[in-house]
Amino acid sequence: MIIILKKEATKANADELLGIIEAQGLKPLYMPGSERTVLGALGDERVLATLNLEAHPYVDRLLPILAPYKMVSRELQAHDTVVDVDGVPIGPGHFTVIAGPCSVESEEQIVESARRVKAAGGKILRGGAYKPRSSPYAFQGLEEEGLRLLSIAKEETGLPIVTEIIDVHDIDVVSKHADMFQVGARNMQNFRLLRELGKSRKPVFLKRGMSAGYNDLLMSAEYILSEGNPNVVLCERGVKTFITGTRNTLDLNAVPYLKSKTHLPVVVDPSHGTGIREMVLPMSKAALAAGADGLMVEMHPHPDQALSDGMQSLFPEQFEKLMEVIRRYAELEGRVLP
Amino acid sequence: MIIILKKEATKANADELLGIIEAQGLKPLYMPGSERTVLGALGDERVLATLNLEAHPYVDRLLPILAPYKMVSRELQAHDTVVDVDGVPIGPGHFTVIAGPCSVESEEQIVESARRVKAAGGKILRGGAYKPRSSPYAFQGLEEEGLRLLSIAKEETGLPIVTEIIDVHDIDVVSKHADMFQVGARNMQNFRLLRELGKSRKPVFLKRGMSAGYNDLLMSAEYILSEGNPNVVLCERGVKTFITGTRNTLDLNAVPYLKSKTHLPVVVDPSHGTGIREMVLPMSKAALAAGADGLMVEMHPHPDQALSDGMQSLFPEQFEKLMEVIRRYAELEGRVLP
Amino acid sequence: MIIILKKEATKANADELLGIIEAQGLKPLYMPGSERTVLGALGDERVLATLNLEAHPYVDRLLPILAPYKMVSRELQAHDTVVDVDGVPIGPGHFTVIAGPCSVESEEQIVESARRVKAAGGKILRGGAYKPRSSPYAFQGLEEEGLRLLSIAKEETGLPIVTEIIDVHDIDVVSKHADMFQVGARNMQNFRLLRELGKSRKPVFLKRGMSAGYNDLLMSAEYILSEGNPNVVLCERGVKTFITGTRNTLDLNAVPYLKSKTHLPVVVDPSHGTGIREMVLPMSKAALAAGADGLMVEMHPHPDQALSDGMQSLFPEQFEKLMEVIRRYAELEGRVLP
Amino acid sequence: MIIILKKEATKANADELLGIIEAQGLKPLYMPGSERTVLGALGDERVLATLNLEAHPYVDRLLPILAPYKMVSRELQAHDTVVDVDGVPIGPGHFTVIAGPCSVESEEQIVESARRVKAAGGKILRGGAYKPRSSPYAFQGLEEEGLRLLSIAKEETGLPIVTEIIDVHDIDVVSKHADMFQVGARNMQNFRLLRELGKSRKPVFLKRGMSAGYNDLLMSAEYILSEGNPNVVLCERGVKTFITGTRNTLDLNAVPYLKSKTHLPVVVDPSHGTGIREMVLPMSKAALAAGADGLMVEMHPHPDQALSDGMQSLFPEQFEKLMEVIRRYAELEGRVLP
Repeated sequence: MIIILKKEATKANADELLGIIEAQGLKPLYMPGSERTVLGALGDERVLATLNLEAHPYVDRLLPILAPYKMVSRELQAHDTVVDVDGVPIGPGHFTVIAGPCSVESEEQIVESARRVKAAGGKILRGGAYKPRSSPYAFQGLEEEGLRLLSIAKEETGLPIVTEIIDVHDIDVVSKHADMFQVGARNMQNFRLLRELGKSRKPVFLKRGMSAGYNDLLMSAEYILSEGNPNVVLCERGVKTFITGTRNTLDLNAVPYLKSKTHLPVVVDPSHGTGIREMVLPMSKAALAAGADGLMVEMHPHPDQALSDGMQSLFPEQFEKLMEVIRRYAELEGRVLP
Repeated sequence: MIIILKKEATKANADELLGIIEAQGLKPLYMPGSERTVLGALGDERVLATLNLEAHPYVDRLLPILAPYKMVSRELQAHDTVVDVDGVPIGPGHFTVIAGPCSVESEEQIVESARRVKAAGGKILRGGAYKPRSSPYAFQGLEEEGLRLLSIAKEETGLPIVTEIIDVHDIDVVSKHADMFQVGARNMQNFRLLRELGKSRKPVFLKRGMSAGYNDLLMSAEYILSEGNPNVVLCERGVKTFITGTRNTLDLNAVPYLKSKTHLPVVVDPSHGTGIREMVLPMSKAALAAGADGLMVEMHPHPDQALSDGMQSLFPEQFEKLMEVIRRYAELEGRVLP
Repeated sequence: MIIILKKEATKANADELLGIIEAQGLKPLYMPGSERTVLGALGDERVLATLNLEAHPYVDRLLPILAPYKMVSRELQAHDTVVDVDGVPIGPGHFTVIAGPCSVESEEQIVESARRVKAAGGKILRGGAYKPRSSPYAFQGLEEEGLRLLSIAKEETGLPIVTEIIDVHDIDVVSKHADMFQVGARNMQNFRLLRELGKSRKPVFLKRGMSAGYNDLLMSAEYILSEGNPNVVLCERGVKTFITGTRNTLDLNAVPYLKSKTHLPVVVDPSHGTGIREMVLPMSKAALAAGADGLMVEMHPHPDQALSDGMQSLFPEQFEKLMEVIRRYAELEGRVLP
Repeated sequence: MIIILKKEATKANADELLGIIEAQGLKPLYMPGSERTVLGALGDERVLATLNLEAHPYVDRLLPILAPYKMVSRELQAHDTVVDVDGVPIGPGHFTVIAGPCSVESEEQIVESARRVKAAGGKILRGGAYKPRSSPYAFQGLEEEGLRLLSIAKEETGLPIVTEIIDVHDIDVVSKHADMFQVGARNMQNFRLLRELGKSRKPVFLKRGMSAGYNDLLMSAEYILSEGNPNVVLCERGVKTFITGTRNTLDLNAVPYLKSKTHLPVVVDPSHGTGIREMVLPMSKAALAAGADGLMVEMHPHPDQALSDGMQSLFPEQFEKLMEVIRRYAELEGRVLP
């Protein structure tokens, strides 16, 4: 940690801080300059987080040297994590496609979806039972009944299930039906939920928040790992920017950036990342090319009758086409569609 | 609702949609143009939300005419709502200052805070017992013990209490100690929490999410009102932008904009909105001048020892100064510090 | 154009506006609703731009139906434009790599750069002679001498030259040495420069501004086409967002989005789009996969001695590797590296 | 400057960099840590800007200690600059209102505007002769004729003139008619223009770019000061964010932030900062309260007939009202409307 003092800070102020640093077992450094005095604290600067040094009246600002996360860091674990979702791997060597409708709407709809996903080569079924919707007047999901329908779809096709969990107190019921918990963008910083999911061993599919920086996302994953669950998949799904025309701005920079910092797999959701059906194919290819470990794609048997997100859902034929194209890209990258 | 069809849409496509519109009890309009066909649906277009028209393959886009919210709208209720927090009003005619530390840390700290807040003219005490922190290694709050300490501070000073609630299942315990629920920025779209708070009659202090647009915030308030609780206070606390130097970008445009659309009170939090102690005073004055109904300000008896947000917390003397200055501004606006 | 009136607008207000619309040769529409009156103006709504209808006191807002651009639109020209840069095509069927150093620094540096670019399969040489730098204390480019050195590099290698122009009054001198004018992000809305370049027939490489929306970029291209120059190449180079860690946020959504709206070629600059040397390769592949027509990449013989942008410049060996990989991706897309 | 090395950097790599730092006359510091080696360079770190240290393969990142600007800095000049615009001061002690139409449209319009501005207490007349417009089909300004009409308005009323300059080569003609050059948001980083205006002594009104950070704006001012012109007024006019509903997001944080860093005056433009006529008054008050030195406000004798920006232009009666209210706020702040 580098600590830049305010112009008016005296030698006594500096000494006080140096004492605090030393008391924490860190190596203190004193660097008086012509314009500013700069202090250093060498060692595991995370112990300084609790000291709140930036609140001192004569501290101008802190410049951290180390990343704020630990367990998710590639510095701690150099090799890539492969997450196993009921037998389906997500991680290097593979390119795993998760697909299905935005919401579970009926048995017929979800079973038909699962069949089309499986036939085309998708490996995990998605489908929302609990739907966070910005309007109280919009369809909110079938809830527990939706979970039950997902189980039926799994029985019919054998596809593992990922579905969103929006509250700590649904962990048991969701756990019974799902093979992977999905944490949605709006809950990426629901830290109590993250902690509780960290106590499970079931994989967690963690979507990036709409205005989450890279460190924010990694710190949210750190919450889960620090409780003991190493099975976390990160998902880039677009962020909120000044840009209109698309629903979100898909930040594919996130893929190589995150993969250089963490050993966790990174999956891309081009459906939310664009909001436009016709853009899902090119952005899926781009995601793979950028180094993603898989996709989460919205597909619906009848998008024009979908109760949510129909505009960005693929028709089954479009999904088949996507899988065909993706397969050729995956080969180029030496990745297997598991 | 205006519905713009794709170039390739035929008369038959248009007729199909016009039939759907009519079946919903809306007045359909057919406007064939030289370049595009445009349809209209006049009436309460919110009934169209469930129809998912934008997912139709020959619909290019929808242009809503009406706002997506209803009960929070000034069109439904022209006069301003005054929210009563255990005897303290928030709303027009008043300028209500809520103050206190970021976190409750000890009995001494919170009681001392309450005394200083009250002495200077603050009317409601804030203090966090449950703290959502981006790092799992940071102080997470005293939880239930913190709530108990807030009650002691209330007994000592008579100040009503506002404190953050982060989970539906804490409603009972928080309710016992708090006079107003605070929903933090990260929970602004925790719709289950909003719904449950809507079933209470206790006031809700709803902070704007870090990347929430105006309609997003109003729709979150709509969740609460639509369940029966009219006592909602909106809070502008800064949004996430490309700007560095300040912690957030305080969007004071939100004050007159929101007040033109809704009858709910709007309060500003200049502490989170700037992240810099020295900027709290000028931005507090600006908030009042922009038409805010009050402030939420962080003050700590010893900011340099605070366990969170010390950098943006005022020293008690600074808070006294702020109240003095604010008082003169409030007079100019014909507002009473209740 | 759809015109939504304010609640308080009367029938007389509406009639006045309908008269104005009709006087412009557009077909007026009157749609009184229960909550709002809505007017329509069918026909070429661009003639309404000059009428400033949104400034009328009883107009709430305008909803345009048509895009604000014309000549760049795919609706006007369905087939893709191929821009010819002194014999090198940019456009569909091809994947054209433009490479070279950020700045021209010396004859040796630029000639060496050109040789490495050519040897690896790059087709156009980039190099800045006029450098817009955010600090007045940073290297500002060799200016005219830099242009002369670019000509030498062209003589040595035969590579066409693209270089930035920052002022109308340099058109003649830049024109003498360059085969394509580059308009930098900071000049994307230097409309006088755009107009003057529109009077030339030399290709223009138009970089997206740091906070330019899709329509903004297309309107800037429209300035050039509307003066008679159809040879415009659009370039996505990253936009400014709240994200830190990368220099800019590369918006690859822009590629399929723009290509669905315009017939002009779209090239991606992953060097500025990431700011990190190691991210250039994955994002180059992603750009191609998303449908881009080419790349602009920074390469320097000795990036660690570069006078600008060294951090994001490739070493020549890295550029060779990139070209190798890109070639395989191009084949998959049926694109020839010309 | 703090230099953080990559994990793999050796002692020899560090020594090489330390040698470079020392050769520049800076004091080098070596801080080997358990996880990373950190170097320091104490002294005027701006000399390091030209060394491009961040491009070294074993440098992870640089953390500057000092601000990148010098002459605009309050550290160089502690007292506030007062800029004199043909007798009208802008700076502390005063609150200077600049007003007038977006564009000069006719003699009658601009003279009438000037009269209304003057009568209400405005001190400087604004009016655009050269208009950067995002559409080539929109009104582009009367250019030189517009300048001539501004001179007539000055003769009639005595109000000094500020008008936008968009090109270096208009300096002479604009200089003849204007008392202050306005640099628009789109030209904030037109560095050649800034340099040339720096060679004049005429005041420069520098508007913040739509996505300019605080340092970007200050560095653009530094361009002007470094050429010898100390008469710069900074203008906050709103930035581009994800927020819709308003034209821009007025960042009033900029006022106290900039004033803590620079001695230059800061003026706010609530017309562009909101884009909505009804929001100009509250945001003008807020600007004053936040510590601004003045306002730039759009007023038009007949906003509904304005050729540009009519929607955000005040009616003359609204401007009179604004001046009345502002006067009371100015008194509270001990500021004189000069």
